[in-house]
Amino acid sequence: MKLSDRSINVQASPIRKLMPFANSARKKGIKIYHLNIGQPDIPTPQKMLDVYQQFDKKVLAYGPSQGLDIYRKNLVKYYKQHDIPLDIDDIIVTTAGSEAILFALLTVCNPGDEVIIPEPFYTNYNGFAKMTGVNIVPLTTFAEEGFKLPPKDKIQSLLSSKTKAIMLCNPGNPTGAVYPREDIQRIAEIAIENDLFVISDEVYREFVYDGVTHTSILDIQSLEKLAIMVDSISKRYSACGARIGCLASRNKNFMSSVLKFAQARLCPPTIDQLAANAAIDIEKDYFKEVILEYDKRRNLVFEELQKIDELVCIKPKGAFYIIAKLPIEDAEHFAKWMLEEFSLNGETVMFAPAQGFYATQGLGLNEIRIAYVLNENDLTKAMKIFRAGLQKYKKLNS
Amino acid sequence: MKLSDRSINVQASPIRKLMPFANSARKKGIKIYHLNIGQPDIPTPQKMLDVYQQFDKKVLAYGPSQGLDIYRKNLVKYYKQHDIPLDIDDIIVTTAGSEAILFALLTVCNPGDEVIIPEPFYTNYNGFAKMTGVNIVPLTTFAEEGFKLPPKDKIQSLLSSKTKAIMLCNPGNPTGAVYPREDIQRIAEIAIENDLFVISDEVYREFVYDGVTHTSILDIQSLEKLAIMVDSISKRYSACGARIGCLASRNKNFMSSVLKFAQARLCPPTIDQLAANAAIDIEKDYFKEVILEYDKRRNLVFEELQKIDELVCIKPKGAFYIIAKLPIEDAEHFAKWMLEEFSLNGETVMFAPAQGFYATQGLGLNEIRIAYVLNENDLTKAMKIFRAGLQKYKKLNS
Repeated sequence: MKLSDRSINVQASPIRKLMPFANSARKKGIKIYHLNIGQPDIPTPQKMLDVYQQFDKKVLAYGPSQGLDIYRKNLVKYYKQHDIPLDIDDIIVTTAGSEAILFALLTVCNPGDEVIIPEPFYTNYNGFAKMTGVNIVPLTTFAEEGFKLPPKDKIQSLLSSKTKAIMLCNPGNPTGAVYPREDIQRIAEIAIENDLFVISDEVYREFVYDGVTHTSILDIQSLEKLAIMVDSISKRYSACGARIGCLASRNKNFMSSVLKFAQARLCPPTIDQLAANAAIDIEKDYFKEVILEYDKRRNLVFEELQKIDELVCIKPKGAFYIIAKLPIEDAEHFAKWMLEEFSLNGETVMFAPAQGFYATQGLGLNEIRIAYVLNENDLTKAMKIFRAGLQKYKKLNS
Repeated sequence: MKLSDRSINVQASPIRKLMPFANSARKKGIKIYHLNIGQPDIPTPQKMLDVYQQFDKKVLAYGPSQGLDIYRKNLVKYYKQHDIPLDIDDIIVTTAGSEAILFALLTVCNPGDEVIIPEPFYTNYNGFAKMTGVNIVPLTTFAEEGFKLPPKDKIQSLLSSKTKAIMLCNPGNPTGAVYPREDIQRIAEIAIENDLFVISDEVYREFVYDGVTHTSILDIQSLEKLAIMVDSISKRYSACGARIGCLASRNKNFMSSVLKFAQARLCPPTIDQLAANAAIDIEKDYFKEVILEYDKRRNLVFEELQKIDELVCIKPKGAFYIIAKLPIEDAEHFAKWMLEEFSLNGETVMFAPAQGFYATQGLGLNEIRIAYVLNENDLTKAMKIFRAGLQKYKKLNS
């Protein structure tokens, strides 16, 4: 029996597809610095881990489909601290940001409908678009411009009768771009004029540097019922394995439709929600240190990249990713070569070729994404190896 | 902006929709015995809870998209104990059985394709069918016949050019039916003759009584690459809140397609997988007691139901549900009435009207599903209240 078209057409993760080469390198005894995935090395707050250690119920039971009340109440408090007033019923807890994206697309779009997304974008959006039959219409942004959002007419030129939403990732994965308020306002204007939803993936909300302010889609008054926020604790508290996220919107119809999909899958994990709940109170102290740490790493990676001739990279203002346009032709070939052919004192570096983050064919071929999720010591070594590798690769291919 | 058709058409959970009436009853001070949901009161094995309590990693990190290797290896061992030989790559860990169903339908069907499912069926199949654009074609089975599978010609009459799979729940929720091997063989024959997948939801595998043997779809040699099994630890170890399940198949193409969808959502919860992993070793001792306990409850509920005139109920052989056809017209009205109007010494009973488990309009109107998930003491009280309520309701409506 033939499998479904969508299962054949859905792409394998471009972030994970180099893993076999990494495994071979490891078998040869080579140490790999992983700058390819967004798995932070920052310790998960002890207050969260304590919850697992202190769980004392006899039965590990289902929770409500919309999430545990105690956690949703605390999320209201969390968003209030960020000047985003919400009611408890404006929030549905999801199994990580992934499920929030799935539910948002299912609820906003019919199969065949279109969502405009600035590219390069988080590559897993492709997977959820395939699952839901949604067509992603890429709005190209450029490394040379720090991946800023294009002017209104450029965005409007992508609208069709099938357009149902504009989807943003802010701060951006993989770009590190943080959209200024006027850019979000511009998106909101277009959305209101054309009756579109704006789905905003804000999982990196706290990760902003250089005094920049993050603008939430839920903080744009004029949007009202068209604003949908996707969120997750994975990066915020270095708790990727907990799989807790949420979907927030003040659109009651939207939320009650999402709840029906949520009921079908019963509930998000129970103890993990309790752990996420414990994180709300530790927020302020924790973030000062964490952001300072990421800021140092960002500076370190950016300075090291600046030493490379003909490399294009505008210093990103958020998240923990940097996209660099390299003076080579094929970044994927280079990434494989770094794993298969190159090492410096028995060590090499793994990063993500950026091509998989673009929907437009042929874009991003010479770009890479670096996730600065390692400590400064390791990052220093990794960037030294990276520069040495690139130099050698350029010589071999010139 | 209008929401998607699928989000408007997806049904609210018929199991959960009586909750507002239950909440009102509780506010009036009435104690409710919950026979409406499959949330067991059996303690989660201490060995699993210990894992949460002993987690000592500094970072709660992502796991692999296919699930933790250690757990998949142990699942191979678990299935081997049940005479189901599998390789590690025949298993992908999912976020509960729910996600396994979603991935199976996404991978087997294009939107508009059909899956034949014996009705009454687990109501959340409707939700996943709506998410994936799959049309469920109900194969009606009957309370009077213990919900046994119909003869071959009856099943064949439902086939169309759009049919991609037959989906079973065995042992059955909500029916408690356990399909004998020859019935599974009959399904397999039809599948092979028509090149269809068989998706078998076997989350209640251990819950069989009266010496009956459960037949896994993966134990039907002739099916080979057409067999897909959905599984979950939720009921097996009374760990519904862990949200750990899996999808198993010896069809390599199927599994590699599923993996791509799995990569999009990154991974199932990490610590919960470790807890599930710890459960593999405790299996044998644990189940003797648990099955004995459920068997007692089954006998109790069945005997109590037999005391009711004109009630139709064949004693089920598996899972922990009983469907009873009541001598009334509208079981949903009766269920609401039990919550709104009736109580015995300040107590009442909640159960699930069975109508929502049927896809065919008009079926199951006078049937209910009872989940015998309470201890014998509570069940005895609950069944006494149920009989008293039914008697009074019949008088009022005669």
